[in-house]
Amino acid sequence: MKQVPIGVSARHIHLSKEHIAMLFGAGYELKEMKALSQPGQYAAEETVAVVGPKGRFDKVRILGPARSKSQLEVSRTDAFALGVNPPVRESGHTAGTPGIKVIGPAGEVELEEGVIVAARHIHFHTDDAAKWGIADKQELTVRFEGERGVTFEHVIARVSDQFALDMHIDTDEANAAGIKTGDIGVILA
Amino acid sequence: MKQVPIGVSARHIHLSKEHIAMLFGAGYELKEMKALSQPGQYAAEETVAVVGPKGRFDKVRILGPARSKSQLEVSRTDAFALGVNPPVRESGHTAGTPGIKVIGPAGEVELEEGVIVAARHIHFHTDDAAKWGIADKQELTVRFEGERGVTFEHVIARVSDQFALDMHIDTDEANAAGIKTGDIGVILA
Repeated sequence: MKQVPIGVSARHIHLSKEHIAMLFGAGYELKEMKALSQPGQYAAEETVAVVGPKGRFDKVRILGPARSKSQLEVSRTDAFALGVNPPVRESGHTAGTPGIKVIGPAGEVELEEGVIVAARHIHFHTDDAAKWGIADKQELTVRFEGERGVTFEHVIARVSDQFALDMHIDTDEANAAGIKTGDIGVILA
Repeated sequence: MKQVPIGVSARHIHLSKEHIAMLFGAGYELKEMKALSQPGQYAAEETVAVVGPKGRFDKVRILGPARSKSQLEVSRTDAFALGVNPPVRESGHTAGTPGIKVIGPAGEVELEEGVIVAARHIHFHTDDAAKWGIADKQELTVRFEGERGVTFEHVIARVSDQFALDMHIDTDEANAAGIKTGDIGVILA
């Protein structure tokens, strides 16, 4: 049985070095608060506010390290509250997505694009993927049993020797299925 | 193919006659704003505020007519925002559920219980259920295809000659699956 631990991603933001400087000051370095499941990735101590046409969220967690492009990941519920209509996208695929205003302690940035609802996906270490015969970008079907049991289709496989086995879903998906971080899904196909 | 239209339920409240009187004044009658899919049920013009330990929602829609017991139905996302931890329950099964404060224009009510996350369910007219061989209280599995395609397990069948065919899910479930009211699910089993 192909069992996968599930991690629930709350709304969060990835920032470019340029935007970190604009929001926190020139030369500012994010401070690591907590390591994430993927090697080298961390939740930073720092947060920002994001402001959309209809609403705002204060204290949106920054995930580090800095990336080449800034990207805000929200649930559909969050998107309605902000008043933006982001597509479901893989991380990094931000072309044509809505922008948003980001506010830090030292300044503001108007992102021209970068708001997405993250497509559910599984990080596989190359060895796990080889063992189970799973290819990078393959779409998988994953079942979670429970009171609100759900089977998720179109779960994207992402394979790298830099990854640790973990399925990532957002808070809407977690709440719909009654899933908490650390719960286990089973890859059906 | 057993196709079922899906309706998305936003947070809402059902009130007893006694609580309507306490919140809106003695003898107050709810005004129908919009008929719902189930015969005789309607969204009222009136709203109330609900206040939990961590947060509040203003303008929570009242669904009429009055019921024997008051009941607030929220998504898990809403429940976190309010700071309450309701179980997933069938409508009307409120024993042992959390309470909440409800505020209307003429007064307040402290519900001792009645907050639930509604269990997903399908209303069947008796004729639909007979045609498809589905029994009241049977648990069904329903697939929704799409970019965020999901198969829901433990969907409770509710059969009555007072019902019209309609599947009810909450906003977390809708957002997780990319479902809008009027979309179609298929009963697999």
